[in-house]
Parts: sequence; structure tokens; C-alpha cells
Amino acid sequence: MMGKDTRFAGGAVSEDALLRRLATKLGGKERIGATGVRLGIGDDAALWGARPGFETILTCDWFLEGTHFLREKHPADAVGWKCLARAISDIAAMGGTPRCFLLSLALPESHAGSWLEGFLKGLRRASHRFRCPAAGGDTTRQEKILINVTAIGEVKAGYAVRRSGAKKGDFIYVSGRLGEAVLGLRELRGAKNLVRTAGACLRKHLYPEPRLALGRWLASKRLATAMMDLSDGLSSDLPRLCAASGVGARIKEALLPMARVQETKSFHEAERLHAALDGGDDYELLFTVSPKKAHLLQPRIAGLRVTRIGTITTKREIVLVRKVGREEHLRAGGWDPFRP
Amino acid sequence: MMGKDTRFAGGAVSEDALLRRLATKLGGKERIGATGVRLGIGDDAALWGARPGFETILTCDWFLEGTHFLREKHPADAVGWKCLARAISDIAAMGGTPRCFLLSLALPESHAGSWLEGFLKGLRRASHRFRCPAAGGDTTRQEKILINVTAIGEVKAGYAVRRSGAKKGDFIYVSGRLGEAVLGLRELRGAKNLVRTAGACLRKHLYPEPRLALGRWLASKRLATAMMDLSDGLSSDLPRLCAASGVGARIKEALLPMARVQETKSFHEAERLHAALDGGDDYELLFTVSPKKAHLLQPRIAGLRVTRIGTITTKREIVLVRKVGREEHLRAGGWDPFRP
Repeated sequence: MMGKDTRFAGGAVSEDALLRRLATKLGGKERIGATGVRLGIGDDAALWGARPGFETILTCDWFLEGTHFLREKHPADAVGWKCLARAISDIAAMGGTPRCFLLSLALPESHAGSWLEGFLKGLRRASHRFRCPAAGGDTTRQEKILINVTAIGEVKAGYAVRRSGAKKGDFIYVSGRLGEAVLGLRELRGAKNLVRTAGACLRKHLYPEPRLALGRWLASKRLATAMMDLSDGLSSDLPRLCAASGVGARIKEALLPMARVQETKSFHEAERLHAALDGGDDYELLFTVSPKKAHLLQPRIAGLRVTRIGTITTKREIVLVRKVGREEHLRAGGWDPFRP
Repeated sequence: MMGKDTRFAGGAVSEDALLRRLATKLGGKERIGATGVRLGIGDDAALWGARPGFETILTCDWFLEGTHFLREKHPADAVGWKCLARAISDIAAMGGTPRCFLLSLALPESHAGSWLEGFLKGLRRASHRFRCPAAGGDTTRQEKILINVTAIGEVKAGYAVRRSGAKKGDFIYVSGRLGEAVLGLRELRGAKNLVRTAGACLRKHLYPEPRLALGRWLASKRLATAMMDLSDGLSSDLPRLCAASGVGARIKEALLPMARVQETKSFHEAERLHAALDGGDDYELLFTVSPKKAHLLQPRIAGLRVTRIGTITTKREIVLVRKVGREEHLRAGGWDPFRP
């Protein structure tokens, strides 16, 4: 792991120096102990102590220049924040709590200065916010900026919420608003300069918030029968939850919590609907609850809006009931943020 | 994690189909339970149960086309084997046992057929050999083949061997022979075709064996005061162990276990020495033992040759005693396998 190769050797930046910088910025001793990390950055591997009675949650996520972010458009600190936030979103989707992460970073030497500084600033901010310190990682030199984050979390044994538990008649819910992130990306693409302060959509695109408190609450109360995070958009992710559970779904356009009109004046309603169905990167939670327990859900949970959008069915298809009453098969949008 | 994006959508390969293939090849139910994996490939994240009284070892490793392997020269199954073997080598270096791994794979659509088949074959073979099933991962499409492996292991609490425990007077040891892998790479670069059966050097370059049994034995007997794996070559890695321990070292050329002459007829002795000092990728163990306990070491441990090559000193420098008796400061070779 760390300190493992010398592919920066010979250049202006030595890899060992880069690793020391990561260790200083991300893995200070004062931060790692509380989350079970017993040996952080700098050895062959990290050591971490799981708590008795808990299961360990393991997830890894690519975050690649050109695919997941654009070098010239995305501020470095947003890249740092988001690479960790989206890995942690997978932990939220299991109902867990993040404990530490491993960072694999490859970058060109030209980006080992101020870009890296900004990246580490955003990553450190996310690491503080989600109480999830760096335990280790690996670095090397590449022409493109390549990032892979492994997030490690915990959940009380037997309490993790999987994708596979949805049953006929369960109500389908989503947190927050859908489509904001992709509309934020469209704002960013249209902007001439990097925008650091912005509206809700751009903020959500740049600095998504994994829904940890909601996920934990649903898991601890055993309310969600199935759960996942919305990373690729509802039209791609709902079929995955249904396939894992061996069921279908029927959702209503009129119920979808779309981006606020005042935030998205420049977009037509059809664009907002398209974004809500096919836009990725929202990192909201999609979950199902038995109708018998639905009364326990408030419209806001842990400060977050929760909206019922439909019902689980036995027929293995996803039906969208349009506002005019017409029914359609929901097609997976398979939305790719960087496809032209 | 898995099932998270649709960047293969639209092409001949859907990402969901690719994930199902990985799950079938690498994460079958019959394989995962025994190593504590409770939920494998296919959900937002994996679930794993640590054993009480053990610490979790976490490590991640890049394995990138052009940096760590060459698409046209390295057989796909060797890429699969080696990406896991080298991550597991970090677990061996802590004295631990591998339990499961996460695979992050990005590849061009042109390689989603027979190349991927070969890659998965080699990876599956390594996964069986080291009893380390896939618990999850992430896939996407890229022009280059990008691999990142997170390996998860365990060690009895308090028994992990760090880099930082070497003391003045400790003897310095290495396992196996040094320099074989880089000489094997030179054979491969010279070969016109992919060589699937070959001598010890090429085999070691293509299919390295993490020294798990030796690492575990040294840790369980509390014999090693410090340990790490040799991934970048002795001249780069020994200074790292010494820096972590706040000590220096004095090693002797005459003691270095170099590649066998009969295996490396085409190389001069100077080349074999250079390979032993600066060649990376051997994944042998470098460790230190107190002189009081040195009598407990046999020349072969767990079937593997173990050689004393020098002594830890207090002066913070690395001295190489040449055969002719002259003393030199050992310079970090910083060897990069793909630098021209």
C-alpha cells in the first residue's frame, strides 16, 4: 500500500513526500483513534478494529477524470469532497456508519501542487464532516487524474438493509429531491468560470451529502424492507432494487419530488422530469416500507424530506403513471454525465 | 459500489451484465461464507464479519496498464493473478491472513471479451489459492485498463508486525531470492510472443507468491521486530523500514540471495546484483529479528529460504559492504519497471 512504489522518483515530487503530505492532511493521530483505526498511513497496510456485535461494510468507488468529473470544470476541492461522499453514500444505503477510508490517487506531476492542495482540502472537509479519517492508500503518477476510494463502515449485526427485501404492496420512498445534481452539472457546463458559491442544484452536484442519518434511522427501526442509493438515476436504480427483490414497481409522475422551480428557472418542466427520472449523482436514498409501518414515517426525517412515489407490485416491470393518467413502461435512462 | 453506474450502457456490454459475470466467476456463495463475507457482489456494499480478538488489515493497490503492466506483453491471466497477489503481499507483510477483496476494474469495450475472460481466470486462481474471495467492486469503461484492488485481512489483535520496530543490533533477513522478478520482466520484454511457461524469474514476475505462511509464522512467534514486503526493491524499501524505525542498516553484498546463475545465464553478475538491490516486484519479505531470538530461525521456513543479509545500526544511513570489502552508501534505486 502506501510507500509502495517510487513512480514519482526522478520528478520534482517524490512519492514518499506525497505520502507524508497525505498522512499529515488526512490521517492525523488525533483523528484516527476514535473510529477504530489503530495504524494509519505509512505502513504496508492499515489496522482497524471492528466493534463486537457489528458487521463491517466494504465498498469501493471509481472517480475518474473525464468519466466522473472534468478537470477544467470541477473545482479541485469538489473532486476531493465528492470522491469520498459518494463512497460513503453506499454505507448510508446499508444503514451504516462510516469508520475510515483508503485513498488510491494517481495524478500528473503538474497537479501535485495547488490542484492537490485543493483536492486534499475538500477531502479533508468531507472526512471531518462524515467522521471518516483516511487509514491508508496508494499513489502513483498518471497523465489522467484517477481516484478510487474504499470506504469502510459498520452496522449492527443483522441490521443492514439490502436491496433484496422489497415485497408486494410495500410503499416506495425517496429522500430529498431528484434531478438536482444533473441540472447542477448543466449549470456548471454552461458556466464560463468555476463557480464556488451557487444554488442548490450546483451545490448538490459538487458537494453531495450522503443520507447517513436517514439510512441509520430506517435501519435501526427496521423500517426499510429494501434500500439503495440513487447514483445513476431512478430509472436505472429502481429496476435494480426490483430485480434484486424479484418484484416490480408502479410509480407516479405527480408524486416525484423534483427540483424546485425557483432554483431551476432556466429549465422546462419536461427537463426537470427527465432529470428526476434519469439524472444520476443525487445520492438520495430509495427505499421501501411495508404499508403496516408506513405511519411511522414523517414527511421529514432527520431534517430531510421523504416522499412516497409509488408501490411495489408482483409483475416484474416498472410502470410510470403520467400526470394525464397514461401508463408507460419506465425505460432505464442509463444516464452518463459525460456523454456528449 | 457494484451496480452503480451505467457507463457500459449503449455499448455491446452492459455494466450489469459485466457485474453478474464477476459475481459468477469470483463471488459464488459456496466460496464467500467461510471467510466471513456475509453479503457479496451485487448490493450497494459488501458485509463482512470480523472475528472477535482479531484486527482488520486494510490495503489498496493500483495496478495500471503502462505503469504496472503492459497490455501487449503481459498475459491477461497474469494481470488477474498479480493484481490480487501484490495486494495480499501487504497482508503477508503484517503477519496476517487474507479474508476477502474488492475489485475496481475499468477497461475498454474491446477487452470485455476474451481478455476479460483470461483476466478473471487468473484472478479466480489467485483468489482460490489465497482463500480470498471477491466481496464486491466497481466497474466502468475506460480507454486504458485500470485496476485497483482492496484486500481485507485479519491478524490476532496485537500481533501485527509494523515497519517501525527494528532496534540496533537486530539482524536483517529477506525471504527467497532478490531480483528474479525484474530479470523475468527483461526476459518478457525480449520475448517475441507471450510466454506462458517459463523459468523461475519469469514465473516470479508474472505470478508472484505473497509470503503468507512465513509472515504469519514470524508474527505468531513474535519473532520479527519489523517487517515489510519488497515491492520496489531492497535499495528503496530498506530505507523505508529504517526510517520508520529511526535506525540505519549495514548489509553485505556477499550475503544477498541473488537469482540462480543457471536461471539467468544471459545476465552478468553485475546485472544480477543490480537486480537484487534495485529490482522491484519480488514481493519477498524483509524483516528484522533480535539476535537473542535469531537461533529460532531455520534456513528454510515454511519451505522458503530465509537469508540474513546484515544488521541494524544506530547511524541513520544504509551501508552496503561490497565483496572486496569497500563500504558504500546504498542509493535508493527507485526502480520503475516501465521507465525506458
